[in-house]
Amino acid sequence: MKVGILGTGNVGRTLAEGFAREGHDVVVGTRDVDALMSRTEPDPMGNPPFSAWRSEHEDVAVGTFAEAGAHGEVLVNATLGSASIDVLREAGLADAPDRIVIDASNALDHSGGFPPSLFVVNTDSLAERIQREFPDARVVKAWNTMTASLMTNPGLLAGGDHSIPICGNDDDARRQVADLLRSFGWHDVVDLGDLTAARGMEAYLLFWLGLYGATGSPLVNTKIVR
Amino acid sequence: MKVGILGTGNVGRTLAEGFAREGHDVVVGTRDVDALMSRTEPDPMGNPPFSAWRSEHEDVAVGTFAEAGAHGEVLVNATLGSASIDVLREAGLADAPDRIVIDASNALDHSGGFPPSLFVVNTDSLAERIQREFPDARVVKAWNTMTASLMTNPGLLAGGDHSIPICGNDDDARRQVADLLRSFGWHDVVDLGDLTAARGMEAYLLFWLGLYGATGSPLVNTKIVR
Repeated sequence: MKVGILGTGNVGRTLAEGFAREGHDVVVGTRDVDALMSRTEPDPMGNPPFSAWRSEHEDVAVGTFAEAGAHGEVLVNATLGSASIDVLREAGLADAPDRIVIDASNALDHSGGFPPSLFVVNTDSLAERIQREFPDARVVKAWNTMTASLMTNPGLLAGGDHSIPICGNDDDARRQVADLLRSFGWHDVVDLGDLTAARGMEAYLLFWLGLYGATGSPLVNTKIVR
Repeated sequence: MKVGILGTGNVGRTLAEGFAREGHDVVVGTRDVDALMSRTEPDPMGNPPFSAWRSEHEDVAVGTFAEAGAHGEVLVNATLGSASIDVLREAGLADAPDRIVIDASNALDHSGGFPPSLFVVNTDSLAERIQREFPDARVVKAWNTMTASLMTNPGLLAGGDHSIPICGNDDDARRQVADLLRSFGWHDVVDLGDLTAARGMEAYLLFWLGLYGATGSPLVNTKIVR
């Protein structure tokens, strides 16, 4: 499958690595490829420079947001929540009807210090905002409920005995994303239905922050018991 | 232990039954005892009239909010979130320093239809509001993350193999509540630390609504896997 991943931070890198490992054809998109590749200092989140990561992942191509957007049959939004809509526009989503967009982002607002809050919550969600902005896209919320390293490697924690929720308005897109997640080793994909469920999946981030704080490790997830 | 339970809806009744079953001395508090006991129609949530429930639970005493508040070494807030602070004031909490208050409520706002939203969320929580209003109380958030029937009977689901988070500013109060929860059969009490974690525990309700919708059963909870 041709996959365009938008964002070159920890989430974008980890997803790119996971998709490439499974044999998908990946282009990671960024605003300015030259600037990204020539940077030698760690990124603002403390990740190693992208060029260092890239030298160990030569099966992953790098391009502009537009190039990644044109390449991907499936796009993954791995950008900061505050940048997501602009980036998806740069990726050409407005002119690519029916494209599946897996939205892995969180609407994190660090401006108030710790704990961070969300800049959209409760009666709306970032995923719904994206869907309203690009009504012909098929937005599926997934992956925002966990740390990057588990996203395509659930077996890292408890042998994979935990759950991943998804939601979206398009039944077929949800089914395709569920199949994709199973291919990464997710045994329990929980389909929450239409995109209003993204309000809960995004609000869950506030709960996850508490789990992270209490356990001292980002390798924490929930198993949905029913 | 002497327990005052504030609220006579489904949560209050189920908790009263659970505490009484474990041998605790329970008074359930309501605004107007005579009005409550003389009502013969189902309550607004569709529960049977309280008097019918009470006739099968004669080990549970009924009193005013003030009487339940004076009785309880531990108080449990099982009222609607929108009523909680007023009820806790009626229960005399302002004059009862150091009282442990287990806050099981949710800040549900049904005014916008389905799905409901929260009237306090993200940068604050109902539990923190209660704590600010009654600074000498020892507020512990617990039980708000699940349906009533699991609260004192976790074995009803998956043999009890799921988790209950708690948080609060007082270490000793959290320990006492954790011990109490274990006495009800909770094997995995997850201490999330101070009361800011209530933001996540209360926001989790939005996620839980999605689980409830997807599974079609309120008998759903999460196991925290770490």
